Amino acid sequence: MVGPTSYFDPARAGELDPRTAELVRRRAAALGPAYRLFYREPLEFVRGEGAHLFDADGNDYLDAYNNVPSVGHAHPRVVAAIAEQAARLNTHTRYLSEPTVAYAERLLATMPELGEAHVMFTCTGTEANEVAMQMARMATGGRGFICTTGAYHGNSELVGALTDAPRRGRPNLNAFDVPDPYRPPREGLTAEQLGEAYLADVKSAIDDFATAGVPFAGMLLCSILANEGLPDMPPRFMAQAAALVREAGGIVILDEVQAGFCRTGSWWGYQVTDVEPDIVTMGKPMGNGLPLAACAGRRDLVERFRAETGYFNTFSSTPVHGAVGMAVLDKLEDRNIRAHVTDVGAHLLRGLESIAPSCDKIGDVRGRGLFFGIEWVVDRESREPDPAGAGAVCNALRDRGFLTAPAGPSHNQVKIRPPLVFDRSMADAFLEAFADVVAAVPA
Amino acid sequence: MVGPTSYFDPARAGELDPRTAELVRRRAAALGPAYRLFYREPLEFVRGEGAHLFDADGNDYLDAYNNVPSVGHAHPRVVAAIAEQAARLNTHTRYLSEPTVAYAERLLATMPELGEAHVMFTCTGTEANEVAMQMARMATGGRGFICTTGAYHGNSELVGALTDAPRRGRPNLNAFDVPDPYRPPREGLTAEQLGEAYLADVKSAIDDFATAGVPFAGMLLCSILANEGLPDMPPRFMAQAAALVREAGGIVILDEVQAGFCRTGSWWGYQVTDVEPDIVTMGKPMGNGLPLAACAGRRDLVERFRAETGYFNTFSSTPVHGAVGMAVLDKLEDRNIRAHVTDVGAHLLRGLESIAPSCDKIGDVRGRGLFFGIEWVVDRESREPDPAGAGAVCNALRDRGFLTAPAGPSHNQVKIRPPLVFDRSMADAFLEAFADVVAAVPA
Repeated sequence: MVGPTSYFDPARAGELDPRTAELVRRRAAALGPAYRLFYREPLEFVRGEGAHLFDADGNDYLDAYNNVPSVGHAHPRVVAAIAEQAARLNTHTRYLSEPTVAYAERLLATMPELGEAHVMFTCTGTEANEVAMQMARMATGGRGFICTTGAYHGNSELVGALTDAPRRGRPNLNAFDVPDPYRPPREGLTAEQLGEAYLADVKSAIDDFATAGVPFAGMLLCSILANEGLPDMPPRFMAQAAALVREAGGIVILDEVQAGFCRTGSWWGYQVTDVEPDIVTMGKPMGNGLPLAACAGRRDLVERFRAETGYFNTFSSTPVHGAVGMAVLDKLEDRNIRAHVTDVGAHLLRGLESIAPSCDKIGDVRGRGLFFGIEWVVDRESREPDPAGAGAVCNALRDRGFLTAPAGPSHNQVKIRPPLVFDRSMADAFLEAFADVVAAVPA
Repeated sequence: MVGPTSYFDPARAGELDPRTAELVRRRAAALGPAYRLFYREPLEFVRGEGAHLFDADGNDYLDAYNNVPSVGHAHPRVVAAIAEQAARLNTHTRYLSEPTVAYAERLLATMPELGEAHVMFTCTGTEANEVAMQMARMATGGRGFICTTGAYHGNSELVGALTDAPRRGRPNLNAFDVPDPYRPPREGLTAEQLGEAYLADVKSAIDDFATAGVPFAGMLLCSILANEGLPDMPPRFMAQAAALVREAGGIVILDEVQAGFCRTGSWWGYQVTDVEPDIVTMGKPMGNGLPLAACAGRRDLVERFRAETGYFNTFSSTPVHGAVGMAVLDKLEDRNIRAHVTDVGAHLLRGLESIAPSCDKIGDVRGRGLFFGIEWVVDRESREPDPAGAGAVCNALRDRGFLTAPAGPSHNQVKIRPPLVFDRSMADAFLEAFADVVAAVPA
């Protein structure tokens, strides 16, 4: 859970303007008081366009946080696709649907690494990871999964068990250390020794299942370790971890919910971290806000799962899913988003790296395409995480009209992950505000 | 799994017209060959309106099956709501959203039986039941659930375990007999003794947990036992089963995914079967096709769950969810759907009951509002289920332009569950076709 210094504290509702206070009160009564809101002073938006969000007073916020509206908030082509298809037909998959099939074909073509593959649509990333984990269990006859100690892959019982999993001690689940050279397991290791240490931990997590008599099913991993704080992994870590999993008879599931759909400058994060999946899961930006997610996998894996379960998802694989998914792919290709992300991402990274040395609280700057994590620390020597500092920066940026949020396993990173239409001029405006906020941070 | 006599058999793809055969081939390649299609000859629709679906050749099918488009396929007001809100704003719930709060308030007002309650939105019924079961476990500290032997509540690992659960033998799960007087557990019981026998089985399922040392969490039950075949339960069965659950410290979760939103002529199925829930789950017709579902519960239950889990669902509780959900409620109220369902449902039931005696294969006709199950049996004496017969009827109706599908624990019911805008003239057309099909059934 993120610290109260950056999220809204219900105890301070009295300090809000009357309209906001009343909406907060109604929201707590209807949806529950523990339902969190971003920022010390919560925001209510009424309109979005491109990478901008507007509140009821017409104030303009530059969105440097939201990854779901990846081709832009309220994008006209996506809106037209949903409106036109919903006005025509929206049924389930017990009938034939050309838009669904055409979309599935086009999506699979972006994943040549899977070879001959099938895709199953779901409504959320949680559902996609549920399918993937069940699929891996059926294929292997195993039960045990490995993941990182900083994982988050969804909120069902099966998938939610991976959240912040301990290294050992949960049934069917062993976590291995996040391969983060910024905080190595012990000091004095060479880069090579460090890589070996991380892989040894992966192997130990796998071997522990054999010792415990739990048959092994596989690994579920975000391809860029997004929730783990985008660590600068040792080279070849992902491929070598995948090889260990396969040697032990397990299935490699790569979660592309955050990394996929051009976020890193490639179609898929695994193409950047150079590892080949057996199963790929995806979600968030896939429908630009429509609940659309999927699990793609090698044909043998999907066929077995489909035959054994008769899986059916009422709301998924509909013509509306197909039409909207296709509109998002159209926009990603029309705008040559991969090149755009690579260019703007590199520009923003250079800017952040030029600001970082001025502030001793900034311990590290990590970036992959248009996805950044800025490590906030008590000081550079101790590297002790400073979640309150990261939260204060996010609130200060909000007050200047720029949206970010804290992230990372210790909630001490400032996460920058804008819609992919974020451009160089937006990056410059953001960097100016960020430099101002950083300059005001007490030493 | 439903029998191949009613679903499409891929081995017979060669008998299809070339266009359909090609789409079937592409679908199998992209989505997997085991992905089932309704009917011996699959249908591809291109347009929907009200209770009608149209194929590419302009053929008109009367939809007597689909419950999701409850206010009608492609309803203009629902389409306008999604188009307008998606064009304006669609973000997640870490920002304030008036449409979401207003919708939650209005929805909760239809469930006075919950008292002071909160609602949590999800994207699918599976996700709603995941939340409900986790919520019940947190509230009770228990693990064990009871359900019926004919249950289906979703496809995640936790919720999917309830599907066709055996009476005993699975961890944390005991099923009790479907209270179906048409197939009593033994002959010669009076109605009163039969009711007692079913309740004794519920009690035995609960008590078994105590014997096994498994702390009890509660019961998950469809309020009208839809997948169990809409049995004509003994009076007060639901309320008495709920009382047994509460006596043992368990939580009563009622699944309204099929029964809710006026399907039975009341807002909620539990109002018809006269039982009070602690938690209510809902889905299918809620967004008329948009992935929208929810779990509503007593405030103490929801607050504890929210505080313990920090549950967040990216695609849920959005302004688009709020706007679309509100448009559906508007239509249900504007058209006075509850009175309409009661009237048309009674009319259709009378018609079905007048046809039934003419065919010895029809063992029983069950109905709740606009939801019917017609029991197909080998003969009325043995009452042996005849899934092939039910499948043949559904295929014959399809060939005449009327959509139904087989259902029930033995897949031997013809399920009639049209959009709620189905009217008397549609019912008459359906009854005429049904009478024709029944007349052609071999004795």
